[in-house]
Amino acid sequence: MDLIGKYSYAGLTYLLWRGELPSGEQSRMMDALFSVCLEHSLNAPSVDAVRFVASCRVPLQAAVSAGVSAFGDWHGGTIEQSAKLLQDGIKTARAGGQSLQAIAETMLGWYSHSRGKLPGYGHPTHTADPRTKKLPEVANETKIRGAHADLAEIIESLTDKFFQRHLILNVDGCIAAIISDMGFDWRIGKAFFIVSRTPGLVAHAYEQLYYDKPYKAARWDEVVYTGPAERRIPDG
Amino acid sequence: MDLIGKYSYAGLTYLLWRGELPSGEQSRMMDALFSVCLEHSLNAPSVDAVRFVASCRVPLQAAVSAGVSAFGDWHGGTIEQSAKLLQDGIKTARAGGQSLQAIAETMLGWYSHSRGKLPGYGHPTHTADPRTKKLPEVANETKIRGAHADLAEIIESLTDKFFQRHLILNVDGCIAAIISDMGFDWRIGKAFFIVSRTPGLVAHAYEQLYYDKPYKAARWDEVVYTGPAERRIPDG
Amino acid sequence: MDLIGKYSYAGLTYLLWRGELPSGEQSRMMDALFSVCLEHSLNAPSVDAVRFVASCRVPLQAAVSAGVSAFGDWHGGTIEQSAKLLQDGIKTARAGGQSLQAIAETMLGWYSHSRGKLPGYGHPTHTADPRTKKLPEVANETKIRGAHADLAEIIESLTDKFFQRHLILNVDGCIAAIISDMGFDWRIGKAFFIVSRTPGLVAHAYEQLYYDKPYKAARWDEVVYTGPAERRIPDG
Amino acid sequence: MDLIGKYSYAGLTYLLWRGELPSGEQSRMMDALFSVCLEHSLNAPSVDAVRFVASCRVPLQAAVSAGVSAFGDWHGGTIEQSAKLLQDGIKTARAGGQSLQAIAETMLGWYSHSRGKLPGYGHPTHTADPRTKKLPEVANETKIRGAHADLAEIIESLTDKFFQRHLILNVDGCIAAIISDMGFDWRIGKAFFIVSRTPGLVAHAYEQLYYDKPYKAARWDEVVYTGPAERRIPDG
Repeated sequence: MDLIGKYSYAGLTYLLWRGELPSGEQSRMMDALFSVCLEHSLNAPSVDAVRFVASCRVPLQAAVSAGVSAFGDWHGGTIEQSAKLLQDGIKTARAGGQSLQAIAETMLGWYSHSRGKLPGYGHPTHTADPRTKKLPEVANETKIRGAHADLAEIIESLTDKFFQRHLILNVDGCIAAIISDMGFDWRIGKAFFIVSRTPGLVAHAYEQLYYDKPYKAARWDEVVYTGPAERRIPDG
Repeated sequence: MDLIGKYSYAGLTYLLWRGELPSGEQSRMMDALFSVCLEHSLNAPSVDAVRFVASCRVPLQAAVSAGVSAFGDWHGGTIEQSAKLLQDGIKTARAGGQSLQAIAETMLGWYSHSRGKLPGYGHPTHTADPRTKKLPEVANETKIRGAHADLAEIIESLTDKFFQRHLILNVDGCIAAIISDMGFDWRIGKAFFIVSRTPGLVAHAYEQLYYDKPYKAARWDEVVYTGPAERRIPDG
Repeated sequence: MDLIGKYSYAGLTYLLWRGELPSGEQSRMMDALFSVCLEHSLNAPSVDAVRFVASCRVPLQAAVSAGVSAFGDWHGGTIEQSAKLLQDGIKTARAGGQSLQAIAETMLGWYSHSRGKLPGYGHPTHTADPRTKKLPEVANETKIRGAHADLAEIIESLTDKFFQRHLILNVDGCIAAIISDMGFDWRIGKAFFIVSRTPGLVAHAYEQLYYDKPYKAARWDEVVYTGPAERRIPDG
Repeated sequence: MDLIGKYSYAGLTYLLWRGELPSGEQSRMMDALFSVCLEHSLNAPSVDAVRFVASCRVPLQAAVSAGVSAFGDWHGGTIEQSAKLLQDGIKTARAGGQSLQAIAETMLGWYSHSRGKLPGYGHPTHTADPRTKKLPEVANETKIRGAHADLAEIIESLTDKFFQRHLILNVDGCIAAIISDMGFDWRIGKAFFIVSRTPGLVAHAYEQLYYDKPYKAARWDEVVYTGPAERRIPDG
């Protein structure tokens, strides 16, 4: 109980996930990480899931729960895949005494050869996402920035050579680098997205429940029928 | 194990929910009840919830689960409310020795006075839903039809007098009358809808996962911003 | 983006839920409210739900989602019911020009007469919950304490007279009073619990997924069979 | 609508999933497949998830939804993995003109070498599961049995040689062989389990909601604390 007041919610989450009290810098970083995805949540499948479920008149938590279930490989999942990439890279470099430059070249060689998508790089819409400026700033100020962020930067600089176009480190990649430098296992990466987005899901559920019409349904003109044509039912 | 082959899935569900083996008639009725909502599942909030969640690449069951969570008061819930109405009516009539006509008049008097919605009556789109013909037919053939269906019919015939327009017994009301005549507690009413619709949710989840694009998002032109106008962040 | 760094995650959640930037005091109160339920999460149905689901090897978010769905009327729901009680009381008092003492007596008369449970009062295990000391302290320091907390206190002082035993304001009641004084609609009360507990659910899901055995099942000695005795399947 | 009465619920599900009306034999097989997992559902993580969530007083569908979300890789998922194994085997055999015996030897060589678990073979508790007798019987009678079931049998006969112990084809493997012989994509395999188990989840949710105590929590003596020992909070 003495922790309340001394530590923020984000700081106490660090304690819960790591089993260690955070320093002031770590607390500040946690707050920035959780805050960065709070906004921006209008146009996302998790929000639509919340809206449709809430429109059927269910309790608030049931609608939020449906939204949380949407945080799959394509919705928050890139943080994990990107953190895995960076953590594998650093581990391999350390084990083999390789430079980050050398390991990055090996990794990109493999990705460009196998035509895999490089998790944490490139973005469909944003060319300059302000969040990718802000988070590294906080990581620098809190002295959290380390080898994973360095590797992430080197990888970005090599994308032109290996992919024939520049792939910027996107917000998922930024978060991945920072939580890796903080010592988090990549498999908890998605949790940063889950916690970040939950208040937004709550807001959408609440609005749909109490201010919008019930029984939201897709517009008919959006539905494209792709099944077989009408057929006669055989007798018998 | 000996039950398989002798009883259909729907019949065995009767056993599971009631603790008694079904007669052949009861089995046939269960199959009809479960079949009646199988189709018709394209334009419904539960389907949209499944689609949005599946588009984020989650396992099949996670998308189906989100769809099931949408079966709230406005999506399947009317079966329960309608069954409660009929069961309360029959219980009260029996306890007080009243005729069904008398109890129906009392109930409608109360509903029309309190401006409550009469659960199981009226329908936004269908004027003549073929399912409301088929289910009573099967109930007659299987000799399951009883007092609850009689009361439901009397209520329909009185709606013109009490509501100044004819409210037909809709498919939810039909199901409610039949399961009440079968002796089911109204509080399990929604389960008929849940079981009925689950194969459809599966089909949508499967199609979205393996044949559609990932990361489905609402079209921007559908989003209507209703929040406050942009504001300056105060200094400090 | 400029908000990150200036505001904590909890403070930004205030912005998201209210449409207004929080003052420093409001931010601090939000952090305390979210932190107060973070711990204490070992022995709760939501945790068990997460554990069982995670043990079947599903993605992290699917297990967390199942836990969120457990925040029903009996698990976090008291915050809402208690906030409704206090907000109804204050509204009624203001509309009728009644004193808080008078309205509290009316309310308790009704509750004790109808044998209803008084939401937010009494607790099965804690006699002195430290959280009920800490939260009002922060509410005092941030000058957030207002009429709802006053009413909550008066109600507590009257429980001996109306219920023949002292019912203390528990942590749900404390949260309810504070969010009511902050101007939150009682219907978003459960959201404070949802956000509070989500990091704990994540921690349990992660531990079960990566450090515990798969396919967790209840011990057989816990299962009590209450169904009918074994019966012979009729021929035919 | 004309379909109701002519086809069982299970038969109509075939139509929904395949886009083709089932023959009488296919309908009978579907009913057997759905029925086989209906019982047997007492001691399973999905049931526990339903029970804990329902104990918090949520609507029926919310508790069922939590149970559905538990059908992960370790709870129903083996059907899919086993169907994939058999379908890959048959496809490879046909493409290369190999005998089933030859392809089975190649597959088992790989599995025994890589120490992988053979999905659909062996069972922790049942040595003679009656369901693995019944399902093939129905598959024979309905003339659905085909190459996948043959391959499954050959694989079983070779387990002694490759694994130094006999691994019987279990119920998941049986279902996998039959749905493969029916032409279902392995990726819809789990759906047979989902539909099969849903009525059982409903029954548990209903019982917990209306006949059991609220707020079910794990017994304290089951909880094993594995975190760090109590520590002093640093000043500051």
